[in-house]
Amino acid sequence: MELDTTSCDDTEPRRRGRRLLHLAETNRLEAFSDGVFAIVVTLLVLDLKEPAHSPGQLLAALARQWPAYLAYFASFAYVAVIWLNHHQTFVGIQRVNRGVHFANFALLFTTALIPFPTAVLSRTFIAGIDSSDAHTAVGLYAGVAASMCASWLLLYHQVHRHRDRLVQEEVDRERFGTERARAIIGIVAYLTAGVLGTLWLPAIALVVFLALPTFYGVTSEGLKAVKARE
Amino acid sequence: MELDTTSCDDTEPRRRGRRLLHLAETNRLEAFSDGVFAIVVTLLVLDLKEPAHSPGQLLAALARQWPAYLAYFASFAYVAVIWLNHHQTFVGIQRVNRGVHFANFALLFTTALIPFPTAVLSRTFIAGIDSSDAHTAVGLYAGVAASMCASWLLLYHQVHRHRDRLVQEEVDRERFGTERARAIIGIVAYLTAGVLGTLWLPAIALVVFLALPTFYGVTSEGLKAVKARE
Amino acid sequence: MELDTTSCDDTEPRRRGRRLLHLAETNRLEAFSDGVFAIVVTLLVLDLKEPAHSPGQLLAALARQWPAYLAYFASFAYVAVIWLNHHQTFVGIQRVNRGVHFANFALLFTTALIPFPTAVLSRTFIAGIDSSDAHTAVGLYAGVAASMCASWLLLYHQVHRHRDRLVQEEVDRERFGTERARAIIGIVAYLTAGVLGTLWLPAIALVVFLALPTFYGVTSEGLKAVKARE
Amino acid sequence: MELDTTSCDDTEPRRRGRRLLHLAETNRLEAFSDGVFAIVVTLLVLDLKEPAHSPGQLLAALARQWPAYLAYFASFAYVAVIWLNHHQTFVGIQRVNRGVHFANFALLFTTALIPFPTAVLSRTFIAGIDSSDAHTAVGLYAGVAASMCASWLLLYHQVHRHRDRLVQEEVDRERFGTERARAIIGIVAYLTAGVLGTLWLPAIALVVFLALPTFYGVTSEGLKAVKARE
Repeated sequence: MELDTTSCDDTEPRRRGRRLLHLAETNRLEAFSDGVFAIVVTLLVLDLKEPAHSPGQLLAALARQWPAYLAYFASFAYVAVIWLNHHQTFVGIQRVNRGVHFANFALLFTTALIPFPTAVLSRTFIAGIDSSDAHTAVGLYAGVAASMCASWLLLYHQVHRHRDRLVQEEVDRERFGTERARAIIGIVAYLTAGVLGTLWLPAIALVVFLALPTFYGVTSEGLKAVKARE
Repeated sequence: MELDTTSCDDTEPRRRGRRLLHLAETNRLEAFSDGVFAIVVTLLVLDLKEPAHSPGQLLAALARQWPAYLAYFASFAYVAVIWLNHHQTFVGIQRVNRGVHFANFALLFTTALIPFPTAVLSRTFIAGIDSSDAHTAVGLYAGVAASMCASWLLLYHQVHRHRDRLVQEEVDRERFGTERARAIIGIVAYLTAGVLGTLWLPAIALVVFLALPTFYGVTSEGLKAVKARE
Repeated sequence: MELDTTSCDDTEPRRRGRRLLHLAETNRLEAFSDGVFAIVVTLLVLDLKEPAHSPGQLLAALARQWPAYLAYFASFAYVAVIWLNHHQTFVGIQRVNRGVHFANFALLFTTALIPFPTAVLSRTFIAGIDSSDAHTAVGLYAGVAASMCASWLLLYHQVHRHRDRLVQEEVDRERFGTERARAIIGIVAYLTAGVLGTLWLPAIALVVFLALPTFYGVTSEGLKAVKARE
Repeated sequence: MELDTTSCDDTEPRRRGRRLLHLAETNRLEAFSDGVFAIVVTLLVLDLKEPAHSPGQLLAALARQWPAYLAYFASFAYVAVIWLNHHQTFVGIQRVNRGVHFANFALLFTTALIPFPTAVLSRTFIAGIDSSDAHTAVGLYAGVAASMCASWLLLYHQVHRHRDRLVQEEVDRERFGTERARAIIGIVAYLTAGVLGTLWLPAIALVVFLALPTFYGVTSEGLKAVKARE
């Protein structure tokens, strides 16, 4: 409504005032979240260190720590995809309430946690891809990743429930209800991968761990948008 | 006043120019504070490390460091609640003066400090919940937390004293005076808990330490808003 | 078009609404990127530490670690130049699509990586400027730096392909096509330096490593602007 | 001029478009700088650690590391004062050119460096307030601090030289020329303190090191404003 008013009537400035307030509101949530995402993504490089080596053996030592490069790339890509989804989600939101704030905190909490299970996972896989510790590490990673998907579900659900007040008029307001499906797919996939990987074969879980960020990257504009492009 | 002007008269653009300046003013304070909050909250994960363990003992080793997870969760939740209160406070402020700047610095200073007493506390509690060091750690934590509440009191007081210039017209300008009560509750509660915990039973202090962030989370929109919802 | 409308017609507010959305869109990409650049640039100081020394020998010990100061300065200057180019690039962009997002992620990924080869390089050069490890380190640095230039090429190319939708009307829209030349110069120069430095003389590569950030700093407003100033 | 136009003529939207561009320009410089300041100020807490101690000796061990608390407080206060001055300086600037960008980089470079000489200084003072290493440390700190003041001088000078294009009309444009005096006071004071402290008595330098941030905090609105308040 605020965006549709014909201008130059005397109530408009007051409305613009309120609108600035609301923008500021979402802006700060986004600025805080951007800060957390940017720090998580940048702290990852602290795990890359010059490997210990005897003189002349630098090349071989660098090559030996390839799993650290892979983990750096995978974590960076995952957090970047989360940021992209967060960005895409909040483009259409003009206001936030307490429920959205708390769902967003849950999301930041689980995202900031990701470097921990990633480091555990990459180190146990170097020790042995089917060791008993690899089974444990796969379960830990799946648990954290499933919790993150659960916080997305909470976020989409909160926005959907209050879509009349929170979502801009120009935007397809039913989008956030549909988005919940993407979060549920993640929860189910990570939990299944965790159970199979812990009890049976860790390598199966790994495939899922790499496939899901790709899925979320491709569908960051929503499942509908992907279908529409086909 | 700036928000109430009927538009299209020739003084309006100049006013909007000033308004942009003021918004920019609060914006930078908020951006700087958001940066500090985001970094504090994200640095906490650096304390979570893969525990040393013999092969096959990863699960047990992960389980043994449960107090580190609890401390991570509690610190994250506390800083998130502080951010939420900060956000809620500045939504209605359109301008800041030197007093507000310095009160805000005091707040950031004490917030950035929180990881330190938290780490000391969690480690001494693993060693023994009623050890002489636990009494010390409880006193340290209570002191830092009470200082943080004192900086909130200073902030609310500064805004309240200059509410005519600093607070937007649309907002309930007396709110900031009332908010001081919340800060005073915190100072009294933390100091009491610190004295009781140091001289008598550390576990009592712990209960207060967990209760107060919850109290501040629930009342982040002000005591009045909570009453109004009832 | 949005910027050229005569005002006060009833479609303007809706347009301004959309315009705010688009600004917000680029703003978040810029905020996230600023966060990453700011953190990379600030984390570098963590490598400067008080050197171990016997009492009274602080001055000599500080002097001995001069390559660490040089590396700190060079890395800081390089990331600052990257930020300046990023800033200059996005000034004229009013909207971003998925391609630009992914090119920007590639750029942040390679930028966040820079402290790693820099540290390896500076340490091997202290050990010996023509050692076999120096040859390796030069190759590593050249590879990362060439990848970063490749991500710039991708970014300029993405913007150029969709310049009608993404670039503001007031801006010279062909600029982004021309900018690709700067990125290609970087890729060729770093790869040549890497091959010469690895197979023949590391010192040659060093000269290129110091010359290229200077080149990018001087031409941050585009090759055309530099020509125009002459 | 842009801020003085009577509204509703058909050139206004284009002007507002440009104005948004310029605001965006300064905004990104400010956002990047805010990020660096926020990270520097928050990383300082990483130096506060639970001291090694035998059971029951926590209180004594905490008390023994008081210089670390003092250094934390002093560094935090100094960077906060720098941020406040930076904020105050850029409030009146509507546009930045290359010279301002590079002066700002020099400022961020020297600010990000501050934790290093601070740590060296606090540790040598614990070892002995008139030791030969304390003389060295005082010289190092004075050198870095004087460089920071020199970068302020450069920044004020750049803005002053191009004040017609860079500074908003509403602002006292001669302010930036006068501000240079504050920077020169700092350079002279730090260099004098450094020479006296290195060659004669380190304690004298310490007094200057604590006095100057206070001076810059009090005069952050400019020397004129301070005089006007008297």
